Amino acid sequence: MTVFKDFQSAKTQQIETALARYLPASHIEPKRLHEAMRYSTLNGGKRIRAMLVYATGDLLEIQQPILDSIASSIELIHAYSLIHDDLPSMDDDDLRRGKPSCHKAFDEATAILTGDALLTLAFNVLAKADCSNEQKITCIQLLSQAAGSRGMVGGQAIDLTNEGKSISIAEIENMHLHKTGALICSCITLVASLKFQTTDSQYRHLKHYAECIGLAFQVQDDILDETSSTSTLGKTQGKDRQAEKSTYPSILGLKASKHLTKDLHDEAIQSLSNFDHRANYLRDIAQFTISRIS
Amino acid sequence: MTVFKDFQSAKTQQIETALARYLPASHIEPKRLHEAMRYSTLNGGKRIRAMLVYATGDLLEIQQPILDSIASSIELIHAYSLIHDDLPSMDDDDLRRGKPSCHKAFDEATAILTGDALLTLAFNVLAKADCSNEQKITCIQLLSQAAGSRGMVGGQAIDLTNEGKSISIAEIENMHLHKTGALICSCITLVASLKFQTTDSQYRHLKHYAECIGLAFQVQDDILDETSSTSTLGKTQGKDRQAEKSTYPSILGLKASKHLTKDLHDEAIQSLSNFDHRANYLRDIAQFTISRIS
Repeated sequence: MTVFKDFQSAKTQQIETALARYLPASHIEPKRLHEAMRYSTLNGGKRIRAMLVYATGDLLEIQQPILDSIASSIELIHAYSLIHDDLPSMDDDDLRRGKPSCHKAFDEATAILTGDALLTLAFNVLAKADCSNEQKITCIQLLSQAAGSRGMVGGQAIDLTNEGKSISIAEIENMHLHKTGALICSCITLVASLKFQTTDSQYRHLKHYAECIGLAFQVQDDILDETSSTSTLGKTQGKDRQAEKSTYPSILGLKASKHLTKDLHDEAIQSLSNFDHRANYLRDIAQFTISRIS
Repeated sequence: MTVFKDFQSAKTQQIETALARYLPASHIEPKRLHEAMRYSTLNGGKRIRAMLVYATGDLLEIQQPILDSIASSIELIHAYSLIHDDLPSMDDDDLRRGKPSCHKAFDEATAILTGDALLTLAFNVLAKADCSNEQKITCIQLLSQAAGSRGMVGGQAIDLTNEGKSISIAEIENMHLHKTGALICSCITLVASLKFQTTDSQYRHLKHYAECIGLAFQVQDDILDETSSTSTLGKTQGKDRQAEKSTYPSILGLKASKHLTKDLHDEAIQSLSNFDHRANYLRDIAQFTISRIS
């Protein structure tokens, strides 16, 4: 894992640099909006989505500037979704990545606009990526599908209707496959679309890997919401139980939930079996996903 | 104007049909979200943005399916911006197009997600438009620029910081050029980009026409907020004064504001002087912009 730690550290630096370049400088008008965009996007998070993009890029030998655009567009969408998710009428969370959430650091109206601007910027970044127009269009199609009403935003809507209800594991899984799974999956599919057709077996294997670790990531999130602390998480601990949300631990118990993350990890690794050592960073990320403590 | 009325009526039908096709059906999960998306987008509004797209398309002889995609993507962005603008932490408006605004008809969280989903869909629609990949990318670049933090969303942020302040006409103009002007301008520039380079004189003349009528539209909006009624407008009348917003009438007075719309109209018409009768719908729209009563 030492090599992976170096990769993680180098790529964290790389995505911060790329994002800082794409985000408008905070001295450009409207300053408060641009400041809020940078506040909510830079210097924070595990950057798991960017790691997946770079690791897939390593496997498929894609040039770094293209990966920077793809990783940035996905991190921008992730950042916007957190801002809107933290709003008082949504999850009402005051803390994000160990800092006041956007609407606490600024105000609610600015937080709404900041999310809107980041989402819009994501597509601008892809439209200006350093690849062919055909590749850009495929990426924009995939990302707008993954982030929209039948992907991430749809998952958030399902989450809203589930609140306070007792739901089944199948329903939780469906919610997570949309809410977090779709965007995590897009980290792999956007990069894979540069080399493969969606019908190619390599594309399908990589996509299946992404689906497994996307779900494993969420089960681990539910476990950490139960077992970790607010200071370690950088966001309010115990929110799920407080909001009476059904989670993997609340239905399966902690032990079975941990078994599930292990099973999903193994399935993810299995779906990489046709790839050589160049897929090792993806294998490391699968391990990281289920062993992380925050 | 009889011919224009026929055009307006035919194109209103055409944009409704196109939008209804692009929006997910309300029986598809998550139903409540899709219902809210359709509620907020269909059957309403003057469709001035769609009219501009179709009129420019008529002038430049662009095929209807491409115009449907462009008009829909812009109307989707307009619809999302109204939903977020009406939220309690923004303009706090209960009425839109004569109906309860999205957060009143549904709830605040759903309204935020509905806006997010419509914005995302706008780029999906453009990415699937029936033109070349190069043309699609140009359209996506132009629209993401116009709708983002240095365009429409930026204008809304400027509007927030202006509230309760006494500002100059130059500052009001700057705010409107961003808040409404940028998106209105994109109705023309997206279509024009299919035929011209941005440096071509025809492109620049059409863009200048759009800037003039975008501003004229806003001055007329300010005038109507003073002089019309809630039932005619379909949204709460007198909101600007109530929110202590500086407007054209509050600074220039009603008479000078009306003169200004006339001057902007004339300048718009002037910038079309190199185009023949095929630009007549654009000329009619300029007239409609300043003579409309709602």
